[in-house]
Amino acid sequence: MRRAVLDATLDLLHRDGLNGVAVADVAAAAGVHETSIYRRWGKKENLIVEALLDEAEELIPIPDTGTLRDDLTAYATSLTTYLMSPIGTAFDRALAALGDDPASVHTRSQYWQARTARSTSIVTRAIERGEIADVDPLRVIQMLVAPLHFRVVMTHEPLTPDLPAQVVDIVLNGLKGGPEVAGSK
Amino acid sequence: MRRAVLDATLDLLHRDGLNGVAVADVAAAAGVHETSIYRRWGKKENLIVEALLDEAEELIPIPDTGTLRDDLTAYATSLTTYLMSPIGTAFDRALAALGDDPASVHTRSQYWQARTARSTSIVTRAIERGEIADVDPLRVIQMLVAPLHFRVVMTHEPLTPDLPAQVVDIVLNGLKGGPEVAGSK
Repeated sequence: MRRAVLDATLDLLHRDGLNGVAVADVAAAAGVHETSIYRRWGKKENLIVEALLDEAEELIPIPDTGTLRDDLTAYATSLTTYLMSPIGTAFDRALAALGDDPASVHTRSQYWQARTARSTSIVTRAIERGEIADVDPLRVIQMLVAPLHFRVVMTHEPLTPDLPAQVVDIVLNGLKGGPEVAGSK
Repeated sequence: MRRAVLDATLDLLHRDGLNGVAVADVAAAAGVHETSIYRRWGKKENLIVEALLDEAEELIPIPDTGTLRDDLTAYATSLTTYLMSPIGTAFDRALAALGDDPASVHTRSQYWQARTARSTSIVTRAIERGEIADVDPLRVIQMLVAPLHFRVVMTHEPLTPDLPAQVVDIVLNGLKGGPEVAGSK
């Protein structure tokens, strides 16, 4: 039942956008009772966040290539592709527009906790391998993803295919750190 | 007249928030005719953006210390202080919530063009001094400021006083770049 409801929710999200999804339509498309959805998810916002998190986990997988550079590049590349898609752009902007009412506060923290719990494992593994010093993995992931979200949400500049590699270069080597930076201008 | 109107607008913005400012109140407080404001600024949104840009220029000055590290640290520190203030937090979130209607598109591009035209000079000067390779100054500034805006707008995590120095460390030296990083964990 969970899978059928999440798939129906995603179908409707892709077709009608974040504000166009009604629980009655999800129930009909998934072949379940509306009350079953409310019993499991409480309210529509929880269902939408779980569906979008579920999709993000599939579209932005956590790589494990053995090197931090390749992991960060793969992660930033699939995040860029996701954020450039219509649903990714719309969802990121909707997240930024969430208010301070209790439901929005809950949605926001639920979403980012789930996302960062997965993505920080990239950095944790690199520290365990001895590839980098013992830094805060969350800070590193935010240095990587913030410039991408910044464009989608704040300036609305397009994301470009060269952006992930440039961001990874700076996060790993900095502006003063090595030949990769000079080559990425 | 311009100064009196901008000061009155800022006073009202600080008192009543972004949505609480009426042109009639600004005119009364500045001692000018409402029609004079409309003649000069066209509409309220333009006036508010100019007032906030004006305040940001004062509160987030562009330093020129002679070294890129000190310039970036001073800039990130005053930006952090601004973003932690009630009006800075509210304005950043209001910017993120702007839609795609023509007035919002105009406000957004006007704001970011004015801000980045000033801040990128920090990086341009460092390139001219030969301190760093010839990188895109806008990309560098976005690496610096995006993690701060990301917290204010996306995760609503508090900004901490150690954040500016940590972000500057990574932008300059990267995770693999030097002893400063190991010391900043």
